[in-house]
Amino acid sequence: MKPLRVALLGCGVVGSQVIRLLHEQADDLAARVGAPLELAGVAVRRLGRKRDVEVDPALLTTDAESLVARDDVDIVIEVIGGIEPARGLIVSALSRGKSVVTANKALLAEDGATLHEAARAGKGDLYFEASVAGAIPLLRPLRESLAGDHVKRVLGIVNGTTNYILDKMDSTGASFNDALEEAQALGYAEADPTADIEGFDAAAKAAILAGLAFHSRVTAAAVHREGITEITATDVASAKAMGYVIKLLAICARSDDGRSFGVRVHPAMIPRTHPLAGVREAYNAVFVEAESAGQLMFYGKGAGGAPTASAVLGDLVAVARNRLAGTRGPEESTYADLSAHPMGETVTRLHMALDVADKPGVLARVAELFAKHDVSIQTVRQEGHGDDAQLVIVTHRATDAALTATLEGLRELDIVRAVTGVMRVEGDD
Amino acid sequence: MKPLRVALLGCGVVGSQVIRLLHEQADDLAARVGAPLELAGVAVRRLGRKRDVEVDPALLTTDAESLVARDDVDIVIEVIGGIEPARGLIVSALSRGKSVVTANKALLAEDGATLHEAARAGKGDLYFEASVAGAIPLLRPLRESLAGDHVKRVLGIVNGTTNYILDKMDSTGASFNDALEEAQALGYAEADPTADIEGFDAAAKAAILAGLAFHSRVTAAAVHREGITEITATDVASAKAMGYVIKLLAICARSDDGRSFGVRVHPAMIPRTHPLAGVREAYNAVFVEAESAGQLMFYGKGAGGAPTASAVLGDLVAVARNRLAGTRGPEESTYADLSAHPMGETVTRLHMALDVADKPGVLARVAELFAKHDVSIQTVRQEGHGDDAQLVIVTHRATDAALTATLEGLRELDIVRAVTGVMRVEGDD
Repeated sequence: MKPLRVALLGCGVVGSQVIRLLHEQADDLAARVGAPLELAGVAVRRLGRKRDVEVDPALLTTDAESLVARDDVDIVIEVIGGIEPARGLIVSALSRGKSVVTANKALLAEDGATLHEAARAGKGDLYFEASVAGAIPLLRPLRESLAGDHVKRVLGIVNGTTNYILDKMDSTGASFNDALEEAQALGYAEADPTADIEGFDAAAKAAILAGLAFHSRVTAAAVHREGITEITATDVASAKAMGYVIKLLAICARSDDGRSFGVRVHPAMIPRTHPLAGVREAYNAVFVEAESAGQLMFYGKGAGGAPTASAVLGDLVAVARNRLAGTRGPEESTYADLSAHPMGETVTRLHMALDVADKPGVLARVAELFAKHDVSIQTVRQEGHGDDAQLVIVTHRATDAALTATLEGLRELDIVRAVTGVMRVEGDD
Repeated sequence: MKPLRVALLGCGVVGSQVIRLLHEQADDLAARVGAPLELAGVAVRRLGRKRDVEVDPALLTTDAESLVARDDVDIVIEVIGGIEPARGLIVSALSRGKSVVTANKALLAEDGATLHEAARAGKGDLYFEASVAGAIPLLRPLRESLAGDHVKRVLGIVNGTTNYILDKMDSTGASFNDALEEAQALGYAEADPTADIEGFDAAAKAAILAGLAFHSRVTAAAVHREGITEITATDVASAKAMGYVIKLLAICARSDDGRSFGVRVHPAMIPRTHPLAGVREAYNAVFVEAESAGQLMFYGKGAGGAPTASAVLGDLVAVARNRLAGTRGPEESTYADLSAHPMGETVTRLHMALDVADKPGVLARVAELFAKHDVSIQTVRQEGHGDDAQLVIVTHRATDAALTATLEGLRELDIVRAVTGVMRVEGDD
């Protein structure tokens, strides 16, 4: 059987694992595809560098553009990351009729449209399971298994670095900075952790998930994004005392009328009984709620060389089978053409602590302000008394705009000295 | 666009939900498939019966064989269950070149080979996501997402009825019979609960999972099967006291040398910290360990009309897309052609409680017997004393044959009055 020839762009943590698996599992892969998979070339930045895997030097090239243009290349795997040169190379490969497997969440979330259009024009496949939640089979279930269902909500822990940090803060009482340092020492966080801790990485994944869940085109720009840098040990301890845990969540939720959706990344308190609450260390997990299927959860390793390579190779087998059969996998599905609504229209709940004077009439004035903004209070608890009096309030569901207006009003009340511990509450409705 | 025509065999709990969703989501389904899906006919046992969904009486027929033979039928959905007439009808449809979606685990585990061969001969698709773990996307991830990986083990709670019963016993201290009655009252268990509580249902699913995980042909006959009827409230309480919970597990594990696999269904103690321990009520969850992907878990509703219909419709969209594209999904993959080894070769651990006389030398004689069978003891704890003395022992990993021989030897020792609480221990290695 004539082999299918694969060009690999990038030979870092993921790329080197892809090469290892292509060698070690060559026989299994050939049996599953129906033809051998052969490495045609590996594009790298520098030729001489020491690598985690042995590669035939004859396969290495710094000229990625010529590699993807070669007639003897059937499939291109892109694991360089970033916008350029990845976009140009993928478009070049697709427009030549090759199939592409990529793990590039940033590019898909920034300009997926260009890639999908190139795939359509070239009649090749564009697969990207590895771009969200690493090894966890998640995009294929959303795109195929749930194709006969109506996804209502996706709620996920999709960034391992921030989950590691928040888990340490929760289990040891550490400060954000100490937990971040530990994550960096262990290799869970990068020297410049911005993309993770400010939620950019999770936002890109949220955009990809929302697009698949709601059959619409979604970019990272549509995602409301807040990071975890402001979270204090006190926030974590208060949440714990109330039976909650703080997680950085990516949330994609269809509006009640089904005509739009919200897509956001921010820290939130979730009940300790929620399945996502038990997701420890750098693991990822994604909760999907569909009309007929009900609640589903997918759990596993969200990053790392071998797990990500597993997802890449699963896609590689699929696109290789498709090429042999002369067919293509499911195209981008954007027929619903829904838009993300502004964060203000998102319905959520809020936890807050108000430092107030402990005197008669305070609660009445606070309650009046909530009522004015049409926000109803689910629980209010007074802690301490005298000058240390604090009202800890959790609201019922309301729009984020109403909740924000309520917060602003509270900050202007003379009886409220400070508003602290402001955190959205998710996962218990 | 010319519609694709669908024949439905069976209009019970699942079938009626399939009809409802075909109507309610007709526009979405058409957009996702690329052509409308049209119900061509519904085969039922009796015409006059009251149903959970409104069906055009003109579509109903008791002549299933003629329905699947009709030239205007493209896809057949089989939700009758059981071996015959389901097998004959599916083979008839496939041999006529139609595609088939089925939820029939019993048939697939009994005689999947016949169905797959008919699909190959007729060049149609045979999809069966709904046959295992209801709405949880599990077979597609195993068959496609992990196609580039090496599955080492599948460990799952795949029967909701038994999980409900064991969960009640664990949370309320109820006896098996009381928990079973409650499950029956709530509709989680059938009037004749044999298929569930004796593990037949889980064994069929285990066979399907093992076949996909190990790329081999596996039937229910190869599955070692034990039910949960012998489990007492005392067993559950002892497990709880030791930090374990008892679950009915389906386990498919590749042998260390990779040349065979074990496939079994039996109750086992798992640590409360294991992700499967938190699976409550009638939920299902399946843990998959793959060489590169690491540990993955899939969680959701394993049964029920709407969840099962969601899985059926996901498959329906896939096979409909394939028909439009003139192609087929992945075929049965049995190239590895491995066999199940006998239960005796399976490696596991055992918990047991020995009623012994509390006198010097007892532990030495017990330990000597374990050593004779090459079974090493992980923990031994003495409870009570005098005539009530009990040794609670948990072994290290050993073959089931060695563990069984050890048990037999213990029963013959004069110093051992009774061996109770015998239960395998899984999930902490």
